[in-house]
Amino acid sequence: MTGTPEQALPPGTREHLMSPVTQAALRIQNSITAGTREYLGMNGFVELQPPLIGPVTDPGCRGAKQVDVDYYGHKYKMMTSVILYKQASLLAFDKIFYVAPNVRLEPLETATTGRHLVEFTQIDVEVARASREDVLDLAQGLLRHVVTYTLRESKMDLAALGRDQDAFTPLLEEDFERMTHQEAVSRLRGLLHGQSADAEIDWQGERIISGQTNRPFFIVDYPKGSRGFTDGESSTEPGVLRNFDLIASDGFGELCSGGERTHEYRRLIERMRETGENPAKYAWYLDLAREGLPPSAGFGMGLERVTRYLAGLDAVWQANAYPKLPGIAAP
Amino acid sequence: MTGTPEQALPPGTREHLMSPVTQAALRIQNSITAGTREYLGMNGFVELQPPLIGPVTDPGCRGAKQVDVDYYGHKYKMMTSVILYKQASLLAFDKIFYVAPNVRLEPLETATTGRHLVEFTQIDVEVARASREDVLDLAQGLLRHVVTYTLRESKMDLAALGRDQDAFTPLLEEDFERMTHQEAVSRLRGLLHGQSADAEIDWQGERIISGQTNRPFFIVDYPKGSRGFTDGESSTEPGVLRNFDLIASDGFGELCSGGERTHEYRRLIERMRETGENPAKYAWYLDLAREGLPPSAGFGMGLERVTRYLAGLDAVWQANAYPKLPGIAAP
Repeated sequence: MTGTPEQALPPGTREHLMSPVTQAALRIQNSITAGTREYLGMNGFVELQPPLIGPVTDPGCRGAKQVDVDYYGHKYKMMTSVILYKQASLLAFDKIFYVAPNVRLEPLETATTGRHLVEFTQIDVEVARASREDVLDLAQGLLRHVVTYTLRESKMDLAALGRDQDAFTPLLEEDFERMTHQEAVSRLRGLLHGQSADAEIDWQGERIISGQTNRPFFIVDYPKGSRGFTDGESSTEPGVLRNFDLIASDGFGELCSGGERTHEYRRLIERMRETGENPAKYAWYLDLAREGLPPSAGFGMGLERVTRYLAGLDAVWQANAYPKLPGIAAP
Repeated sequence: MTGTPEQALPPGTREHLMSPVTQAALRIQNSITAGTREYLGMNGFVELQPPLIGPVTDPGCRGAKQVDVDYYGHKYKMMTSVILYKQASLLAFDKIFYVAPNVRLEPLETATTGRHLVEFTQIDVEVARASREDVLDLAQGLLRHVVTYTLRESKMDLAALGRDQDAFTPLLEEDFERMTHQEAVSRLRGLLHGQSADAEIDWQGERIISGQTNRPFFIVDYPKGSRGFTDGESSTEPGVLRNFDLIASDGFGELCSGGERTHEYRRLIERMRETGENPAKYAWYLDLAREGLPPSAGFGMGLERVTRYLAGLDAVWQANAYPKLPGIAAP
C-alpha cells in the first residue's frame, strides 16, 4: 500500500476491467473465497445462498442509508447485512455461512477513503451456542488459513502486485492480540487522535491504530450505544457489548466485525427500544425469537477489504469488477 | 417428484428451516455449487462476485417486472440476471462465471407452479469467442459433473428424500438430444398442447415435454421475438436465434437458458429497437460495445431448479432457506 492512493477513484469500466491490477486482484479474491470455503467446509459449516431483500435488514450500519424496494406493495429493504437471517438459519444448522452481497448508501464523504463501497460482499459466519472467544479463534483461524491458501495459490499475482509475502509472517506465527475498546481509545488519544470513548472507533482511528502493528489484532468490548441491538450485552458488565472487530496490520484497518448476539425475545425488545428501533417492523424475526432462537456468535468479514489487505491494494474498489463508490453513478 | 405438490406454498419460516426436507435440500444444493466450482475451476474459469443493482438489467425476463431502486438520485434496477455484466467481464477474463442472486417480480399466477421464485440464484457462465455448440457441450459437461459430484457427496441426503439414483443413469451415459424450437412446437401440438410457434415454450409446455423423457435435452433455435436483444441472431438463417434451453427429464422442466450473444454495437442498436428497448438506457454497456466486446456464448442455470431436479423435490421453494413466492410477503 502506498499510503496515498495514486488514483482515488476508479477509471472507466473498460480500463478497469482490462487493468492487470484488477485482474490480479480478482484472481486473488478467488483464492480468498476458495480458501474460505475449504476452511469452513472442513469445520462443518453449511453455506447458504444469501437473501437480497426483506421486510427489514441490519439496523447497525453506521451512518449509511438503506435502499427501499417495493415488493408487491410491501416496503422492503435491500440487505445491508444478513445478520437477522444468520441467526434464524441456526434453526436449520448449527454452523452456517453466507458469501453475501450487500448494498449500503454510504455518505458521500466516504467515496475516497479507500475503504468504502456501496455494493460489497461479506463472508458472514454464525455458530450456535458459541461464545465470543470461540468466534475470535474461528476468525483468526479463518484468516490464517485464507492467507496460507492465497500465498500458495496466488503466488504469481501477489508478486505481480509487488506484495511482500514476508508481511504475513507475524500473522501466521503468533496469536492475534486482543485489546479492549477502552484500551484502543487510550492508545488513539495518546497518538493525538480525538477518539470518542462512547462510539465505534472511527475509520481514521482504525487506520492509525492499524498502522502501529505488523499483525492483525482484535478490539473487544465496545460500549453499548456504539452498535445495534443484535450485539449481545455482557451479563456481568452492563453497558459492555460482547463483540469485537478484527483490525488488519499496516494501516489496512478493519477486516471483520462480530460478537455474541442478543437472542432472547425480551432482551431483543429492550435493546431495540434502547437503540431507537421499532419492534413492530421486525415481526418475522421477533416471532422466531419468541418461540426460541439459539444463542450464538459470529462475524462478517468484508471480502473486498480482505482482498485489499492480502493484495496490498490502495483501495477496496480495486478488488471489485464493477465498483460503486458513494454518490458516483457507475454500472 | 409426486406430480402434484402436497403443499403448494411454504409453511412459516421456523417450520421450513426445521424441516428435514429443507435441510437435506440445502445440503444437496451445497454439493451442486461445490461441484460447479470444481468443474468450472478445472476448466479455467474465474468466478466473479455478482453486482446487485445497476442502471439497467436483463431486458428478457418474460412477463416479470423489474425492481426499481433509488441510487443517490439515479433510478437503478435490481438485477434480473447479470447477462450484461457477463459480456463486459470478458474484457478481463476469457472464461468467467457468477453464482448470482436475482430478483424478478413474477406474476401472481406463477406462485404455485413449483418453478418460480421471486428471489433466486443463477449459475451464470460466459465464454469469449465460443459458439453455441461449445456451450451446449459445456452445459452438458457441467450438469453431468454436478450430478456425479452430488451422487457421491450427498448420497445420504438423496436417499433420505427418496430420490432414486438410477434416475440419473441415462443423463450420465448418453449425450443429450438436441431438438429445434420448431420440432418442440410440433411435438407439443401432437400432445394437444397449444404451443405458439413464435414464442418461448411456455412453462406448461416445458413440463409436458420434459415428462416425455428420462434424459435432459436441449431445445435450440428459438424464433426472434421470443427472446431479448442479447440473444444472437443467425447470420445464415435470419429470424432464428443462436440460443438454447436445457430441459430436465421427468417433468422437471427448464434448468438453463443460453446461447451466442449479440455483441456488435450496430447489431445491438438494431436488436434493441426491434425488441422495444431504449438504447439510451444502456449507455454504459453500449459504450463498451462501441469500442469492442468479444463475441461470446454462455448460459444461466437456475440453482434452485437444478437442486429441485437432483433432489426430486416438488417445488423450487423447497430448495431455498427463505423462499419468496410471487405476491406473498415473506422474509
